[in-house]
Amino acid sequence: MSNDLSIDLTAGFACPIPKSDYTNILLAHGSGGKLTHDLISKMFFPRFRNEFLAPLHDGAVFDVGGCRLAFTTDSYVVNPIFFPGGNIGELAVNGTVNDLSMCGARPMYLSAAFIIEEGLPLDDLWKVVLSMQEAAKSAGVLLVTGDTKVVDRGKGDKIFINTSGVGLVDDGRDISPRNIQVGDKIIVNGDIALHGIAIMSVRAGLEFETSIESDTAPLNGLVEEMFKASRNLHMMRDPTRGGIATTLNEVAEQSGLGIKLNEEDIPVPDAVKGACEILGLDPLYIANEGKLLAFVKKEDADEVLDKMRKYHIGSRSTVIGEVVDQHHGTVVMKSKIGGNRIVDMLAGEQLPRIC
Amino acid sequence: MSNDLSIDLTAGFACPIPKSDYTNILLAHGSGGKLTHDLISKMFFPRFRNEFLAPLHDGAVFDVGGCRLAFTTDSYVVNPIFFPGGNIGELAVNGTVNDLSMCGARPMYLSAAFIIEEGLPLDDLWKVVLSMQEAAKSAGVLLVTGDTKVVDRGKGDKIFINTSGVGLVDDGRDISPRNIQVGDKIIVNGDIALHGIAIMSVRAGLEFETSIESDTAPLNGLVEEMFKASRNLHMMRDPTRGGIATTLNEVAEQSGLGIKLNEEDIPVPDAVKGACEILGLDPLYIANEGKLLAFVKKEDADEVLDKMRKYHIGSRSTVIGEVVDQHHGTVVMKSKIGGNRIVDMLAGEQLPRIC
Repeated sequence: MSNDLSIDLTAGFACPIPKSDYTNILLAHGSGGKLTHDLISKMFFPRFRNEFLAPLHDGAVFDVGGCRLAFTTDSYVVNPIFFPGGNIGELAVNGTVNDLSMCGARPMYLSAAFIIEEGLPLDDLWKVVLSMQEAAKSAGVLLVTGDTKVVDRGKGDKIFINTSGVGLVDDGRDISPRNIQVGDKIIVNGDIALHGIAIMSVRAGLEFETSIESDTAPLNGLVEEMFKASRNLHMMRDPTRGGIATTLNEVAEQSGLGIKLNEEDIPVPDAVKGACEILGLDPLYIANEGKLLAFVKKEDADEVLDKMRKYHIGSRSTVIGEVVDQHHGTVVMKSKIGGNRIVDMLAGEQLPRIC
Repeated sequence: MSNDLSIDLTAGFACPIPKSDYTNILLAHGSGGKLTHDLISKMFFPRFRNEFLAPLHDGAVFDVGGCRLAFTTDSYVVNPIFFPGGNIGELAVNGTVNDLSMCGARPMYLSAAFIIEEGLPLDDLWKVVLSMQEAAKSAGVLLVTGDTKVVDRGKGDKIFINTSGVGLVDDGRDISPRNIQVGDKIIVNGDIALHGIAIMSVRAGLEFETSIESDTAPLNGLVEEMFKASRNLHMMRDPTRGGIATTLNEVAEQSGLGIKLNEEDIPVPDAVKGACEILGLDPLYIANEGKLLAFVKKEDADEVLDKMRKYHIGSRSTVIGEVVDQHHGTVVMKSKIGGNRIVDMLAGEQLPRIC
C-alpha cells in the first residue's frame, strides 16, 4: 500500500462534510442521531457503497457458498462498566445477538475484542468475562475468536469491547424496511427507556424511589417465537442509541411511509417518567437494550402478540402504532390530550456512552 | 440477565490469576507475548472453551449450512495513527484480511467499528476512510457493516478501529499446527521487522539514513499462489505483535515439535539492523504486518518458493528454518558464529500499541 500521508485531499478527495458544519468530531457524532447519520451518509456510505451495505440495517445479509448469513459488529464503550441490571460484558454479547436477530438470523458465533486501559483491576476484567460467558450461554451462541489490546493509562477508559457476530438466515425470512406496508402494526415487547435511565441514574448519582435496572437481554428466543406466529414479520429493529424515536424515524425514512404512534399506548414505567422529569429527558429518545420494534401485517398482529406475551421478556408486549399512507417519511404521535406532534430524530446527544 | 454486580467472586469464581502475580492490567498484557498468553489461557480460554476456539489460531473455522467459514476479529490501537508506509485504516483492513488468509480462507466480507475520541479532526477521519476503501479494493473484500462510537476527550486516543472478517475455506484446505511434520520447511515472504521499526522511529522521533516503511499489505493474493503450488501447506501464521520469535514459539508449543532457525537466512535489512542497535531491540521480536510464516512439506518447498518469488510481496521469500524432532516445544537458532541459542517468547512489552 502507498504511504497514506500522501493522499491529496484537494484532488477530488476533499472531506465531504463542509468545514462550516464542523471540523472536528463531537460527542454527538456517537449519539446514534442526526450527526451519526451525517457521518455515515456523507463519509462512510459513499466510499464503502455495495449491495450489502445499502440497507443500512443492523447488519449485513449475504449469501456464502449457498447459505444466507447475517454479519454485524458493535463496539461497546458504556460508562460506567458496571451498572444496575448488568455490565459492559453481557451488554456486548446481548447487543450483537440482538443485531443478528433483527436481521431475521439465528445468532450462532460471536467474536470478542477487548481494548483495556492499563491499570484495570483484574477482578473487574474477570467479572466481565464471567458475565459474557453467562450471556453467551443464555443466548445459545459461542464466542469463537477474540483479541486483546492494552492502551496506556489515560488513553482509554477501563475497557471497551467489540463483539461481531455471524448468524444463519433461514429460508423465507426477509426483514427489510422495503417490506413494510400501510396498515402494519408496530409492536414493542415491553417498557421502554430502562437501559438509558439506569445508566444515567448511576452517572448522575441519583437515587430514585424505585430502582431502575437496564433491560439488557438477548432477543433471539423471542424472535423465534414471533416467527412461529407469523410469516409476515416485515421489519424489526432494536431501538438502542437514540431510542424508539430515532429508530422509527430511520424506518419511516427508509420505507418512505408514515408512522403514527399513540402516546398512551407506549409503555413507560412510572419510575422512568419520574426520572425523565427530574433529568429533563424524553423517554422516546432513551436507549433500550432488550427491546425490539416489530412491523407486523395487521391481520397477524394478534397472534404475534399472543406468542410474545407468553415469553418472559415479551410479557408486556403491546401495539404502539401503525404504518400510514400520510406524512411520508415522518413519525407523528397522537398525544394523550389529543393533539398530534412530529417526533423527530435525536438531534444532539442526550447521554454520551450509553452503550 | 442478573445484575452482574452481584457475582460472588469467592464462591468458586475467583479470578484464576493469583494476586501475587499482578492485580491490575499492565501494558505487557497487550504485547502478544507471555502476559497476553497468561490472560488468554487462564481467563478467557477456560470460560469460553469450545471446539472452535480450541486451536487458538488467528481465527475460528466452522461449518455453517454446509459451507466452511473462517471468522476473525482484531482491534487496532496503533500510535501514531499515520506512520511511514500507512495508517491505522489500511492496517485494520489488511490485518483482518491476513488473519483470514492464515486460516486458509478466501477473505470476503469485513466489518469496521470505530471508537473515535471527541475532537479528532474530520480530515484525519476522512483520510483513514479513504485508505480503508483503497485497502479493501486491493484485497478484493467488501466492507459490509459498521459501527461508530465517540468517547469524551481524554478517554480514548484519536481513533481505535475494530475489523472483523468472514471468509470461505475451500475444500481440501486445512491449516493447523497439528498438521506440521518433522522436516517441514519454514518460509518467510521477505524482510522482517519493518512495521515495528517504522512505528518506533516516528514515536521516538528518530530519523534513520534510509527511511523504513511499514510492510502493511494484504497477504491473500500471495496465499492463493502458494496453494496453487502445493496441497501440503501445513500451517501459516502472520508474525505481528511479538514478531517471528513469538509466533514460532506458539507454533512449537501447539505442535509439540521443535523449530530450528538459521540466523544467517533470516532477511533483516541493514536499516532495520541499524535501528535495532540504536534502540536496543531484537528484530526477531518486532511486529510485521505484511509477512507470513509458512510450514511447507519439505518436497514442495522449492515449488512454493518459486511461486512466491514471482508475486510482488513475495519476491524476497526464503527458507529460514525447519521443523525438527528435537528440543520439542522450543525454538532454537543457529547463530552466524555457529552457536545455538534458545529463542524464547516475548516476555515484556517492547513496543506498546504497535498495531
